[in-house]
Amino acid sequence: MAATPRPILDMNAYRGGAGDDPLLARRLANFGAASVLFYDRPIQMVRGRGAWMEAADGTRYLDCYNNVLSVGHCHPRVVAAMAAQTAEINVNSRYLHATVETYLERLKALLPPDLSNVLLCCSGSEANDLAMRVAMKATGRRGFIVTEAAYHGNTLAVTEISPSSWRRGDRPAHARLVPAPGRSAYGDDVAGGFAAAVTAAAAALAADGFGLAGFICDSIFSSDGVHADPPGFLRPAVAAARAAGGIYIADEVQPGFGRTGAGMWGFARHGVRPDVVTMGKPMGNGYPVAGMATRPDLLARFCEDTGYFNTFGANPVAAAAGLAVLDAIEDEGMIANAATRGAQIRAGLDALAARDARIAEVRGAGLFLGVEMAGPDAPALVRRLIDGLRARRVLIGAAGRYGETLKIRPPLSLSDDEAGFFLDALAAVLTAMPLTPA
Amino acid sequence: MAATPRPILDMNAYRGGAGDDPLLARRLANFGAASVLFYDRPIQMVRGRGAWMEAADGTRYLDCYNNVLSVGHCHPRVVAAMAAQTAEINVNSRYLHATVETYLERLKALLPPDLSNVLLCCSGSEANDLAMRVAMKATGRRGFIVTEAAYHGNTLAVTEISPSSWRRGDRPAHARLVPAPGRSAYGDDVAGGFAAAVTAAAAALAADGFGLAGFICDSIFSSDGVHADPPGFLRPAVAAARAAGGIYIADEVQPGFGRTGAGMWGFARHGVRPDVVTMGKPMGNGYPVAGMATRPDLLARFCEDTGYFNTFGANPVAAAAGLAVLDAIEDEGMIANAATRGAQIRAGLDALAARDARIAEVRGAGLFLGVEMAGPDAPALVRRLIDGLRARRVLIGAAGRYGETLKIRPPLSLSDDEAGFFLDALAAVLTAMPLTPA
Repeated sequence: MAATPRPILDMNAYRGGAGDDPLLARRLANFGAASVLFYDRPIQMVRGRGAWMEAADGTRYLDCYNNVLSVGHCHPRVVAAMAAQTAEINVNSRYLHATVETYLERLKALLPPDLSNVLLCCSGSEANDLAMRVAMKATGRRGFIVTEAAYHGNTLAVTEISPSSWRRGDRPAHARLVPAPGRSAYGDDVAGGFAAAVTAAAAALAADGFGLAGFICDSIFSSDGVHADPPGFLRPAVAAARAAGGIYIADEVQPGFGRTGAGMWGFARHGVRPDVVTMGKPMGNGYPVAGMATRPDLLARFCEDTGYFNTFGANPVAAAAGLAVLDAIEDEGMIANAATRGAQIRAGLDALAARDARIAEVRGAGLFLGVEMAGPDAPALVRRLIDGLRARRVLIGAAGRYGETLKIRPPLSLSDDEAGFFLDALAAVLTAMPLTPA
Repeated sequence: MAATPRPILDMNAYRGGAGDDPLLARRLANFGAASVLFYDRPIQMVRGRGAWMEAADGTRYLDCYNNVLSVGHCHPRVVAAMAAQTAEINVNSRYLHATVETYLERLKALLPPDLSNVLLCCSGSEANDLAMRVAMKATGRRGFIVTEAAYHGNTLAVTEISPSSWRRGDRPAHARLVPAPGRSAYGDDVAGGFAAAVTAAAAALAADGFGLAGFICDSIFSSDGVHADPPGFLRPAVAAARAAGGIYIADEVQPGFGRTGAGMWGFARHGVRPDVVTMGKPMGNGYPVAGMATRPDLLARFCEDTGYFNTFGANPVAAAAGLAVLDAIEDEGMIANAATRGAQIRAGLDALAARDARIAEVRGAGLFLGVEMAGPDAPALVRRLIDGLRARRVLIGAAGRYGETLKIRPPLSLSDDEAGFFLDALAAVLTAMPLTPA
């Protein structure tokens, strides 16, 4: 299999040259080796509206990738709330501000009631870094169980449990990997197989002297290639982690805030109760805000050793943006829309799969969908599909351990016509693309 | 000495009850053990303008503490830039946006020319976490030298090198502490003593098998109690760290962006050239943005193992806010103003010190000033001064290993009258405060 050792479109540095693009040349000079870019010829964006982004050359692209601007680019309500609060006051949480508490209470009302302490920070990485520390303090142990192509963030500690970021062979010994919960790894008994893998990983961590601090997973398994079904498959794995003395951290940075079309959080689809929930990306629809919710006893234990204060974290602008996002989700029926549009796209993808052997499997929930391509050339096929869709003005990305899966995440505000536009574009690209040997 | 083991007003949890304040009760229920608040009766803020914040009860406070809103609360230029860009597009840096590159180039023009790669992230914590990883990869070592009461951020890795956050005795073995560069530790030869301490710490790290990856310091030594003089004292310490094979990380999260009144960066006062510069707090005047600048060779080495991508980091709203801050600093002469107003306050503090034996030393540069109180009751005295100043509508904080130093950081836009208001208030509080036994 012509596999690259990890997903190809996420953490990879840009390998091309600047060509005749002066803005790209500036980017490469500024970011250096850390230039992470989409496409061989990256796109200069100038304007966003709803599900669309407009490039400098006037081309309008349907954004089926960006799960940050989740209620739509430049949602008027979020833009207005941020602008108004920024003009009024932006101050750190060592002072009190009513909007911050109102937001935290809105969040808490959406979470399991025992997770009644919520801290705000700036990024999902900070949230997961904090969650790891809570888990280590709660258990007195250092080991974590993650899926094989997991991505949980970019701090030193979180990178150590994010295999999709590892460029070389060396894997931290305290991070034990389990295959993602798909049929390819576990056959028909995904729930049982995944739980058995967690049990074995916990035993290995115990044998290595680390012990199990926490089992952390993104309940939609985004970077692993999107694994959603059957709902409930997570429950035995969580039970296995708890039986081994670890806590369960639900990383909702990607599936959270209604994306799965089945409630606010991805873990709810599985009927599990996390000890810690982390959240980020869509939380402020672009404003840098993230959070961690946990039980007061776990937070109090953590605070015995160090406190936690985040200068920007719980500022009233973040809270105002977060409140506007929740308002938009609720008032505009976005969770129901994610379910409806998700089902529409899913049906279209299933129809494509039925007549195209290059599609191995269609997966997902709501507006978080994955299309795994078949055969040894799947990663190359995915790259060509992504480029072909770009030419037809649709933006999507890749997922999976080898980048073998199309990752589709349009805004929750997607319309019927926009869903159709995506499906038509994908069908046209598949038709135009020469068959590759399976 | 009635010393508490660490600074009292920074990372400490709030120890009081909610009393009859319903908003405080909500905060304590929401943040739990991680409730970090100023004052026994925290202030509810509702509005910020320039150097002033207005509380819910209508009281207006002169903000002499907040070094985030550094060009002034709700600076019209920054507010307008953020609002306009948020309404236009906010997208991650995998696409190109001209404003991002323009901002990075403006930053680079202010930095030493060899630090030509600049990455943006969300917080000073993320910037320092990344800097540590660059240092470890560059050297193949794990040890860091920091000052005794240093604070560099709140991730797992950064907390391990932030002694001011440690609540218990256990100190990570790879973090070696050196006393802050003041007369109390090193007498008249601060430069020589500090360098010798760095050399000894590096030798200890080598002996312990960690080796020296990096020497990281905030060039104004904020949490250590503010140590600024004589300019240049850092140079031998940096040379000592380099002689031991470590790199030098200048943490400019606090002194950067003109605060010292002597150029854009605190390290420039010392005539040193960092290998890595980190920046944060005032960078977006409240918008969550931070950054790390380094040499392309160091970044390329780091990127061999993992890439670096930050979802919110280099978005065009962060860049627009950052540009507006640089414009405000430059067009409104804020560095010169920091020097002038800093000298005015310094002269007033020196005059107070000359007639009040309770003041041990006045230190600082520009609008970053420290007033160390004398004797065993200094921490208690500092707490009473902070409360007394609050009653006179001035907000300041504490610094130093035991909270024995007043920390004074008004906005760079401070006026003559506002500087006078602060000095009058401090003089009145000192006069009204009963003398305590020395």
